[in-house]
Amino acid sequence: MNTLRRFAVALCAALSFGCLALVATADEGMWTFDNFPAKQVQERFGWAPDKAWLDRVQAAAVRLTGGCSASFVSPDGLVLTNHHCVSACVQNLSTAAQDYIENGFVADSRDKERLCPGQQAEVVTAISDVTPRVQNALGKKTGADLAKARDAEIAAIENESCTDKEKERCQVVTLYGGGQYKLYRYRKYSDVRLVWAPEQQAAFFGGDPDNFNFPRFNLDAAFLRVYENGKPAATPQFLKWNPRGPEAGEPAFVVGNPGSTQRLFTTSQFDFRRDDYFPILVPLTAEYRGRLLAEMDDDPEKTRTGNSRLHGVENSYKVFIGQWQALRDDEFTARLSKAERELRDRVKGNAEIGDPWTEIDQAVAKFRPYFTDYFMLEERAGWRTDLFTYARELVRSAVEREKAATERLPNYAESRLPLLEKQLTDEKPTYPWLEEMTMAFWLSKTRELLTADDPRVKELLGKESPEQLAKRLVTGTKLADAKVRKELWNGGLKSVQASQDPLIQFALAVEKHARPILDRYRAEYDGPVTVAQAKLAKARFAAFGESVYPDATFSLRISYGAVEGWNERGKDVPFATRFDGLFDRATGAFPYNIAKKIGAAEEKIDQQTVYNFVTTNDIIGGNSGSPVIARDGSVLGAAFDGNIHSLGGSYGYDQRVNRTIVVSSAAVQEALEKIYVAAALIKELNHTPTTKP
Amino acid sequence: MNTLRRFAVALCAALSFGCLALVATADEGMWTFDNFPAKQVQERFGWAPDKAWLDRVQAAAVRLTGGCSASFVSPDGLVLTNHHCVSACVQNLSTAAQDYIENGFVADSRDKERLCPGQQAEVVTAISDVTPRVQNALGKKTGADLAKARDAEIAAIENESCTDKEKERCQVVTLYGGGQYKLYRYRKYSDVRLVWAPEQQAAFFGGDPDNFNFPRFNLDAAFLRVYENGKPAATPQFLKWNPRGPEAGEPAFVVGNPGSTQRLFTTSQFDFRRDDYFPILVPLTAEYRGRLLAEMDDDPEKTRTGNSRLHGVENSYKVFIGQWQALRDDEFTARLSKAERELRDRVKGNAEIGDPWTEIDQAVAKFRPYFTDYFMLEERAGWRTDLFTYARELVRSAVEREKAATERLPNYAESRLPLLEKQLTDEKPTYPWLEEMTMAFWLSKTRELLTADDPRVKELLGKESPEQLAKRLVTGTKLADAKVRKELWNGGLKSVQASQDPLIQFALAVEKHARPILDRYRAEYDGPVTVAQAKLAKARFAAFGESVYPDATFSLRISYGAVEGWNERGKDVPFATRFDGLFDRATGAFPYNIAKKIGAAEEKIDQQTVYNFVTTNDIIGGNSGSPVIARDGSVLGAAFDGNIHSLGGSYGYDQRVNRTIVVSSAAVQEALEKIYVAAALIKELNHTPTTKP
Repeated sequence: MNTLRRFAVALCAALSFGCLALVATADEGMWTFDNFPAKQVQERFGWAPDKAWLDRVQAAAVRLTGGCSASFVSPDGLVLTNHHCVSACVQNLSTAAQDYIENGFVADSRDKERLCPGQQAEVVTAISDVTPRVQNALGKKTGADLAKARDAEIAAIENESCTDKEKERCQVVTLYGGGQYKLYRYRKYSDVRLVWAPEQQAAFFGGDPDNFNFPRFNLDAAFLRVYENGKPAATPQFLKWNPRGPEAGEPAFVVGNPGSTQRLFTTSQFDFRRDDYFPILVPLTAEYRGRLLAEMDDDPEKTRTGNSRLHGVENSYKVFIGQWQALRDDEFTARLSKAERELRDRVKGNAEIGDPWTEIDQAVAKFRPYFTDYFMLEERAGWRTDLFTYARELVRSAVEREKAATERLPNYAESRLPLLEKQLTDEKPTYPWLEEMTMAFWLSKTRELLTADDPRVKELLGKESPEQLAKRLVTGTKLADAKVRKELWNGGLKSVQASQDPLIQFALAVEKHARPILDRYRAEYDGPVTVAQAKLAKARFAAFGESVYPDATFSLRISYGAVEGWNERGKDVPFATRFDGLFDRATGAFPYNIAKKIGAAEEKIDQQTVYNFVTTNDIIGGNSGSPVIARDGSVLGAAFDGNIHSLGGSYGYDQRVNRTIVVSSAAVQEALEKIYVAAALIKELNHTPTTKP
Repeated sequence: MNTLRRFAVALCAALSFGCLALVATADEGMWTFDNFPAKQVQERFGWAPDKAWLDRVQAAAVRLTGGCSASFVSPDGLVLTNHHCVSACVQNLSTAAQDYIENGFVADSRDKERLCPGQQAEVVTAISDVTPRVQNALGKKTGADLAKARDAEIAAIENESCTDKEKERCQVVTLYGGGQYKLYRYRKYSDVRLVWAPEQQAAFFGGDPDNFNFPRFNLDAAFLRVYENGKPAATPQFLKWNPRGPEAGEPAFVVGNPGSTQRLFTTSQFDFRRDDYFPILVPLTAEYRGRLLAEMDDDPEKTRTGNSRLHGVENSYKVFIGQWQALRDDEFTARLSKAERELRDRVKGNAEIGDPWTEIDQAVAKFRPYFTDYFMLEERAGWRTDLFTYARELVRSAVEREKAATERLPNYAESRLPLLEKQLTDEKPTYPWLEEMTMAFWLSKTRELLTADDPRVKELLGKESPEQLAKRLVTGTKLADAKVRKELWNGGLKSVQASQDPLIQFALAVEKHARPILDRYRAEYDGPVTVAQAKLAKARFAAFGESVYPDATFSLRISYGAVEGWNERGKDVPFATRFDGLFDRATGAFPYNIAKKIGAAEEKIDQQTVYNFVTTNDIIGGNSGSPVIARDGSVLGAAFDGNIHSLGGSYGYDQRVNRTIVVSSAAVQEALEKIYVAAALIKELNHTPTTKP
């Protein structure tokens, strides 16, 4: 490990533009499959994957539309991912009497596998470049016109390119903030079922305190299966299951869909996040978390039904804190500034590039004064609670679907509607207490931040308190019923406008105030920043050629690295944990209590089996569930987290300390054999032709 | 108003060191009575108070040890202050059956006036300069030695100077961060009783959303009475009650005890607050607030018993947000930096002053790495919940009282013990649910911020979860019983160490970890900063002479200003509200519902009576309850708040927008006559010899 660390430090020092730049150093980078850094990998390992290897892996890589990654691990559509990627589904399938979060879920035959509401699985089948076509459509447009032209051209490309809307999805992915546009064609599976999930306490031992920490002891794995015409889909391209456990220093490839990074941001964008965005977002999230914790405390049914939301909130909260700390770290930001200064120097005088930095400064300065309005009424409207989201999307999609393709907001292009419809109309439980308290929270915070005297606040609240209004809306709405949502979806704008549903009426009132803010944002921020970022991309290509990777966009990427611990303030952190460490760390008190079934199997388990391990791969949220692939193409485990240092990874990667955390295939195999006794699964995972792949 | 505003703007422009400096501009400043700015006041109003006026006012000004200000308004010890200054007392005196928070409290005869637990009232009787003596004791000492020598000398002065410990209190006040030390001698009253408090909904109409806003409609007033030997104390020096209502532009003097400002901070201290302190403090406060709100929601008894704590938390939260915003405002901080640069330039080369800025930079840099430890285990230990505070103070005072006077921490000097003993041993209800949830919150956040692997966290929690430990401590402790606390206080260290009380044992364990952090803080931050600040004070006196006022220190100050509205983004805000505005603003939904007794009296009230008004006086938290005094020495009302702009007042004053908010004597008189019908009080307030004062 020390050798590699020295390598990284030496490399950073040698590169005059610093280690946290857009140009990959050492194991940095979330690469697209059509720009795989074969040369760097060859230098790193004396070997690099060939096209056949990459094609096989791409064909086995699965995106889950809920925001996760996964992979096929059998020819019968079996999908490996994380428990936390399916926990919302597990909760949706549970009742107070049969709680799969508490007890785990094992379908011991295929007819017991159960549909996950709203879930869709997608596999990339082709990538093609559509940059010239989009750039051509933009021409010399600016502001709102530019945003509209861009969105219309993307919508047209997506709509033309996928003819089989049942099985295909086409998506134009914006890379380098507008420097490239790529058309990704997906095979999609809309019928995704739950096969196996361990007890949540097994997957999430140590809970929030251990989240993003390492050493770690989490069985954060689960299996899904994709279906086609009511039968398991044939997936001949899959990754071989490899329960051997990782070796120190061996190469590891993480293939998945990192959600979002901001490594190509300019200084004013970083400053905005540090001084405006996080100071609003973090305290709001903290208060919401506090309300949720207190509501759930000592109430078993609220604890069960609030589980998924609480974990989402606590996970996000820790991410925000980590990102924000990175931006308040002078050493970290000095490196970002240095990289920016050097890029500016390199392209000075290049007329085609001009001064995109100042253009972005101006866009940020214009956004700042109404950011709070945008945040409360648009970005976080309804605090994204299920019922309000249904109402808002029904309202907004009804309005947009009336418009010509060239006039629509991007999320309502024809190509995007099938998934939206599925998400809006799949049956799924809602929990009134959670809806009501979330709505009341959002209403009261909107009043707090916009003030009680804001005319929009006055109009939305009328004579009611936030609590009264939330109660009336949640009690009165019928949107919890999927049939009602389906009718409104089918009925379109007329139906929505005529609806007497109080939440639809309220969403119409919110829309009245949100739309002007969104329009202004698109004209004053989104449009100008798109133009400026395209120029920044040009600057980077001019300065650094192809050794540049794009920011994460929840599209398919591959990262390379090695199985390797790190040095934490003078102390070496070993690369792996084993089952024995779990029993050592347990105190018996939540969240450090051992899951019941693991506890019961303690004597049977091989305590030396590798449980979790870390690698140097550069990942970010959205990569959860990604297969961690050995040189021979087999799957060593599923990435489920980064260490605490990786949280700054939104803005920059530091190979010395950033680590990916993986649950090993070995641990999953041990659990399936001795703890959860899932014989059919073991057989399916291990009885595959040895020639694959 | 426009004239005055122009005056302020012109003055700012004329003073090369900017408007937010340490040197008072226009109505800026919280002046000590021994450095009253007579010249400025004379220039401002063509008149200034003489010594007799100032002496009379000083003798009628009352400090409440709970953190508020007040004044005598009758010769029989009657004290005017704010409702929010007595609301903890009102709550302590209430039960579920007799809730004075809900219904208000009127003692219609003196035998019905009731003791406020822990409350002490104090009146300054003399101020003398002890700077040479303290500076002499410091000599050339540094670090921990300096802090110890300073505290020992202060303790000795206080102890020697007050011989009658029953009636007197002596306190050395540190001014200009160590530039001056003044001995304040107080007449103290330990028996303070509640006379009148309106319904809380009358005092706090608009609740948290309207807090710090204006226009405002709050009857935030209350009366106490000081007793001596079981009888109302004679207070011949009192302020004449003046129910006439304010006139636009008339001079107003606010006399009280502003708690704390940081206007003399250096850049690195501001940066520390912006980037380290608030990013920890604000989200923690937000989460705690969220937990508290959710616990109280729909639970009348928790709503009643958590009331005082919730208001404290929400008020602090808004203050933190306002202070933090000021420090993230580039224009605001540019003025602070400019003032600092100019002071540095003025004293450049002065060997006696040297470079205190760099000394403070270094102290801040040393503090930063263990700030979180200090914050969680020392400054906010137990999140200041009542029972933990009892336990910690019993433990710490027992340890300190064993030491020689020269060795003690400053809060445990002999002169400070009587008040501490009173606060620890007065009978006062505690609310187990609130104690338990607060302890659990603090324990879980301590684990979150210090990490689950921190050895101190491991030792404190053992095998228990934060929730289990909090429950065991709160359920097991006997410290809610004042007699038990009294025994432990009397028994001293032996008794504390032998105690089987689980909370005492826990506080001993916390103390083991907190003490080294406190020692380090005193040696590395407190000591060096005291030395540096004394040099900074020298620099300021050298540069600006006497036109400098010290930062607020919860000691007696006077500020001058005028009754005047302001211009809010192009819109004039009138200086006063009237009763009719209250009825206009009411929606019927909490917190915009009219208090029951006000509602019932609507027809009787003179709707044109001035309710609240604003003045340009420079105040800060701690000034709550301060009399607002007219030129003739009569009291026009009680200051109860600042407007939203005043929150940046911690760091700088801007006369264009900073305003003090006052509940008028006229409104109080109207309420006593027509709403609460307190005939004896009306008589006492209005039937005073016309020659007074």
